[in-house]
Amino acid sequence: MKPYAQLTPPERAEEYSGLRSAFDALKAKGLRLNMARGKPGKAQLDLVSDLLSLMQDPKDYISDGIDVRNYGEMAGLPAAKRLFAEILGCKPSQVFVGGNSSLQLMYDTIAKGYTHGLLHSPRPWCKEETVKWLCPAPGYDRHFRVTETFGFELLTIPMTETGPDLDAVEEAVKDPAVKGIWCVPKYSNPEGVIYSEETVRRFAGLSPAAPDFTIMWDNAYCVHEFEGDYEPFPDILSLCAQAGHPDMLFEFASTSKITLPGAGVACFACSEANMAHMETLLAPQVISFDKVNQQRHVLYLKDKTHTLELMKKHAAVMGPKFRCVVDTLDREIAPLEIATWRRPKGGYFVSFNAMPGTAKRTLALCKEVGVTMTSAGATYPYGKDPQDSNIRIAPSLPPVEELEQAMAVFCVCLKMAALEKLGV
Amino acid sequence: MKPYAQLTPPERAEEYSGLRSAFDALKAKGLRLNMARGKPGKAQLDLVSDLLSLMQDPKDYISDGIDVRNYGEMAGLPAAKRLFAEILGCKPSQVFVGGNSSLQLMYDTIAKGYTHGLLHSPRPWCKEETVKWLCPAPGYDRHFRVTETFGFELLTIPMTETGPDLDAVEEAVKDPAVKGIWCVPKYSNPEGVIYSEETVRRFAGLSPAAPDFTIMWDNAYCVHEFEGDYEPFPDILSLCAQAGHPDMLFEFASTSKITLPGAGVACFACSEANMAHMETLLAPQVISFDKVNQQRHVLYLKDKTHTLELMKKHAAVMGPKFRCVVDTLDREIAPLEIATWRRPKGGYFVSFNAMPGTAKRTLALCKEVGVTMTSAGATYPYGKDPQDSNIRIAPSLPPVEELEQAMAVFCVCLKMAALEKLGV
Repeated sequence: MKPYAQLTPPERAEEYSGLRSAFDALKAKGLRLNMARGKPGKAQLDLVSDLLSLMQDPKDYISDGIDVRNYGEMAGLPAAKRLFAEILGCKPSQVFVGGNSSLQLMYDTIAKGYTHGLLHSPRPWCKEETVKWLCPAPGYDRHFRVTETFGFELLTIPMTETGPDLDAVEEAVKDPAVKGIWCVPKYSNPEGVIYSEETVRRFAGLSPAAPDFTIMWDNAYCVHEFEGDYEPFPDILSLCAQAGHPDMLFEFASTSKITLPGAGVACFACSEANMAHMETLLAPQVISFDKVNQQRHVLYLKDKTHTLELMKKHAAVMGPKFRCVVDTLDREIAPLEIATWRRPKGGYFVSFNAMPGTAKRTLALCKEVGVTMTSAGATYPYGKDPQDSNIRIAPSLPPVEELEQAMAVFCVCLKMAALEKLGV
Repeated sequence: MKPYAQLTPPERAEEYSGLRSAFDALKAKGLRLNMARGKPGKAQLDLVSDLLSLMQDPKDYISDGIDVRNYGEMAGLPAAKRLFAEILGCKPSQVFVGGNSSLQLMYDTIAKGYTHGLLHSPRPWCKEETVKWLCPAPGYDRHFRVTETFGFELLTIPMTETGPDLDAVEEAVKDPAVKGIWCVPKYSNPEGVIYSEETVRRFAGLSPAAPDFTIMWDNAYCVHEFEGDYEPFPDILSLCAQAGHPDMLFEFASTSKITLPGAGVACFACSEANMAHMETLLAPQVISFDKVNQQRHVLYLKDKTHTLELMKKHAAVMGPKFRCVVDTLDREIAPLEIATWRRPKGGYFVSFNAMPGTAKRTLALCKEVGVTMTSAGATYPYGKDPQDSNIRIAPSLPPVEELEQAMAVFCVCLKMAALEKLGV
């Protein structure tokens, strides 16, 4: 196998012809495979479904003297706050435990900025001429969409090996219309980058022009290693406080990929002053979230140590899937020099950079063969990758056998798209 | 016992002095009783806690081919839609099943009007000069607060024996700034009124000036009889459609007072056109709600007939509490002619009208003795009852023995406040 760029036109034509036959053969199989979203697979769901057998004993209905079955405790069970605080490394008083979705909590935080204003907002964001929002890209499409739906102007910040480009961030926050940034600090979506200590420190030390500039710190993969040991990660809230900006950041986490994606527990963490402000804004909206499910999770996860043990079991399911993806790429694609990718140690994605101008075509070909991937461009603001290059591979849902098939399809389609681009 | 108005000043002084002694004796008991909120009592929680023993069998994880444990099905499980549609009398395609809180769904509907606009909104409500909202009063404080928090101008609509005064409503909706109204159509909060057929028909037939005028139809007590049989109630959605205004109304319901208040399932119901609009607006906000809990409820409640059987068991707990309240009032207060009240057959409250100008004083006295009630004025917009008369009694939480004590306190305090007003 030679790099495609070094092939002569007849060699390219021959290679393409062979791929075309392989493509037709795969198409004839009538596959229906999905690598589109970070959905846990059935084996992971089964792994944790003993969660549902808890809460059988009436003594479990009571937590710190609270009957978890009744209304009340808007900010969550104290025991659930303690659990998340231990996992995130912050204080229980900084944790608000909500329902099953951290995305909802993130949306709601932005929505509150829009309708009422955050703690230091001069006015609600809906009363601002323009609100701009920083989007490190490649990044998470659902993040970008939340800020897009409120009509904010999305500004792309390049991602580096150590997290978002802080030079670009520090420059951008000089504009008082820039009200915030999306971050996935550990095993970033999709690149699997762990923000470096310097990146984290520089985030905490930002001095934005907007008094209500808000870092949306989505720590979605805080304990989600699938290769190697747990990587400790600093508590950003205390770093922000030390830097004199305690209210500049909201952190988010959930058990969606620790227990059940449809029925987990989500939280946000923030300074006590932000908490008081948010509780005032949330009081008209909600009496309380599902504390039975919170208690179920407290009983199930117990503490950080026990949670990390559970994550090792998830890793035993996830590790082989990621190795299948990256090993296939190393074997099939690397010699051709038509793409780059990272080998992550945690998170839910492999970020893949195809030859510029070939991502959409690759995924269109995949679709034709019955393999659904995240749309090309999804990892960029407004769904538009200026290079038409980045593809997010989500290997968690299919079992390894299916993943092998899907990756075979992906490689064939990728090669075809590259050859088409080079000229066949 | 003579009507207080007929007592001579010395008789009043004597009566007051006796009450004062009773008051002091009650105060010495150091009571801590609560009739403030419509919280189910422990007996009701215990009655339904076998709910938590479901979902043990892997076959229960699958509903209509959907693994309820994973992400997906934003609008809820089809089986949960069918269950609520049967209970409400509408179509499953008109039902969106969410999380544990109908208040959240209501808040969110208003919030979507504010941030993005509802289906027929010329612009988002945050871009309107003024938004006015109709509040039938006495009504539910949490409803009023949702619209207050968005800065809407709250307009009081008088309640009658048959529901909100429709003459007043029809007049008010001629103003295009009036964007909606709160309604609790069955066993209204707090009066326990069932809207008459004519009231319901006139609501469906409204022709408001605002194209996006929205009736918030909170059917919180749709199956919540505690005296007598289930009262059938018309499907408002089909009446609105027949009247040519299919999109004018959102209906809400939940199992908070059928199963567990902290861990039930809530829904909204609306026209298919509204549903499509809401799903578009909700898609950036939420991947899916807790479908495990939805499935738990489908398995537990089964269907409307089975749900009504369960409500009979709740009635066996609730009935004696309401009888305790109303019988005490009939016996202790009626002869004095210092107040009026209704004897509801369902819902969660007794609406009580003290002698004008005595509600606050009565509750301040109650508090001194250790009995917490819903704040006086809470049943009116902005928490201000122009008559200082209406008191919402919530008898559901305390067991009957405690309720008897609490009512004894309430009667003493009420009498004292009335005598103070009359002059002692």
